[in-house]
Amino acid sequence: MQLIDGKAVATAIKKEIATEVERIIANGGKRPHLAAILVGHDGGSETYVANKVKACEECGFTSTLLRFEADITEEELLKKVDELNNDPDVDGFIVQLPLPKHIDEQKVTEAIDYRKDVDGFHPVNVGRLSIGLPCFLSATPNGIMELLARYNIDTKGKKCVVLGRSNIVGKPMANLMMQKQTPGDATVTVCHSHTENIAEECRQADIIIAALGQPHFLKADMVKEGAVVIDVGTTRVPDSTRKSGFRLCGDVDFENVAPKCSFITPVPGGVGPMTIVSLMKNTLLAGKGEIYK
Amino acid sequence: MQLIDGKAVATAIKKEIATEVERIIANGGKRPHLAAILVGHDGGSETYVANKVKACEECGFTSTLLRFEADITEEELLKKVDELNNDPDVDGFIVQLPLPKHIDEQKVTEAIDYRKDVDGFHPVNVGRLSIGLPCFLSATPNGIMELLARYNIDTKGKKCVVLGRSNIVGKPMANLMMQKQTPGDATVTVCHSHTENIAEECRQADIIIAALGQPHFLKADMVKEGAVVIDVGTTRVPDSTRKSGFRLCGDVDFENVAPKCSFITPVPGGVGPMTIVSLMKNTLLAGKGEIYK
Repeated sequence: MQLIDGKAVATAIKKEIATEVERIIANGGKRPHLAAILVGHDGGSETYVANKVKACEECGFTSTLLRFEADITEEELLKKVDELNNDPDVDGFIVQLPLPKHIDEQKVTEAIDYRKDVDGFHPVNVGRLSIGLPCFLSATPNGIMELLARYNIDTKGKKCVVLGRSNIVGKPMANLMMQKQTPGDATVTVCHSHTENIAEECRQADIIIAALGQPHFLKADMVKEGAVVIDVGTTRVPDSTRKSGFRLCGDVDFENVAPKCSFITPVPGGVGPMTIVSLMKNTLLAGKGEIYK
Repeated sequence: MQLIDGKAVATAIKKEIATEVERIIANGGKRPHLAAILVGHDGGSETYVANKVKACEECGFTSTLLRFEADITEEELLKKVDELNNDPDVDGFIVQLPLPKHIDEQKVTEAIDYRKDVDGFHPVNVGRLSIGLPCFLSATPNGIMELLARYNIDTKGKKCVVLGRSNIVGKPMANLMMQKQTPGDATVTVCHSHTENIAEECRQADIIIAALGQPHFLKADMVKEGAVVIDVGTTRVPDSTRKSGFRLCGDVDFENVAPKCSFITPVPGGVGPMTIVSLMKNTLLAGKGEIYK
């Protein structure tokens, strides 16, 4: 069994990006600039955005954090989005989700210029991903593809089971894994709450990507010997021994599943660190104008 | 075994649309208007476009056919697309594919205003389909969903195998069948040229949607008793007994597969007639401004 060290890969990629940014600057180019809009004071969102700003520093990017109180109107927020769309110095930007209930998240997502949508949530980027065209890939699937590539995991013709059909993980993950590309070219099955015999589906899989958000859902008897297991789950479960009062729990019963696997990602330190790195990769691509001119 | 009569369903839907158009006109509304651009004189394209124009008549739509010789430049074609985008009387339009080799099909597809893209090929419509938002669905998957609905075929939690991963059938079909909707909510597996044991995948399926374009690929020993089989294949095979010199051949060995099925579509007369009807449904939606204002 080999542990997939997402933290180490993430660190390596950030260094690669920083080196490339230095080269761009040395050649008289522009420093990539990521902006983030944060509405309100949700604890999780504060942490995520702070980590994104920190990653920008590590990569040598300019970052701008725009903070608004939770009572900002949808109209005001859409105006800010429009300002960033039209700011020539901003290469890409994100609106941290979730947003307060009085704001339509889908409307805000679609208001972002798809050429600056480094989260990859705009329908144009989702559609181009499905068609197989260059686009901003959404962060978690992008990070998983990178891990599969860096560990040289063979996916061609393999049976891949994706657990979960969310718009930000399950569906784009399935679409990427079935593309005619490497990694990819897998025979993909998407399982969800209505799947009749999910254990049997998993037992047939060479690669399982678990993104249900159900702590320890995937048990050892659902995994065949030698399988590759990617754990996307990051549920916060109460833990009084931690300073924060919680710990992150994956979708995989790691202790019992790991011994059967050829490769497995831990939680934390697996897929998680790759997510922010994917955002950095997209910001670099945006800065270089490599996907959209 | 029940035969799914696509021809009869298509006729019924065209009548329903015509009735609705009469009601719209009676209420002082606008007659839906579909335009089609046809480049060159490809035999298949001529037939398809002629059938679309005929279907418009049956539905009570206005139709406009714009013909260009095969030597039209990409720039000229893009200018025509732009004219239709800006023509307030045209509710939706299509550019019949394939285009001559000197024209970039993807560029032309993306030049169409997604609000008039009744073929559903624009990335915005592909992305919205994946996300599960209202959109113009591409014709063949849309037609298949309609057949499943009209025959009350249970898909929830069923194992559905899609054979083929094309952008216009396999991928959107898989994305529709896995959505939280009815029909839908199926456990979907997408198989393709790199799938290792395609026969075994098929034998496990409650529903098989065959869209490989390989005549008689699906044999009786690949289908379990009681399966639902949808045949998207329409390969032209030489047949000297026909006036046209060819006959349409499906992906399913119908003669031997049909006795095992609960439901099956024939070729011709199954999925084929539904494809043009899907275009009519989209044109009606475009005329009514129900998806995009």
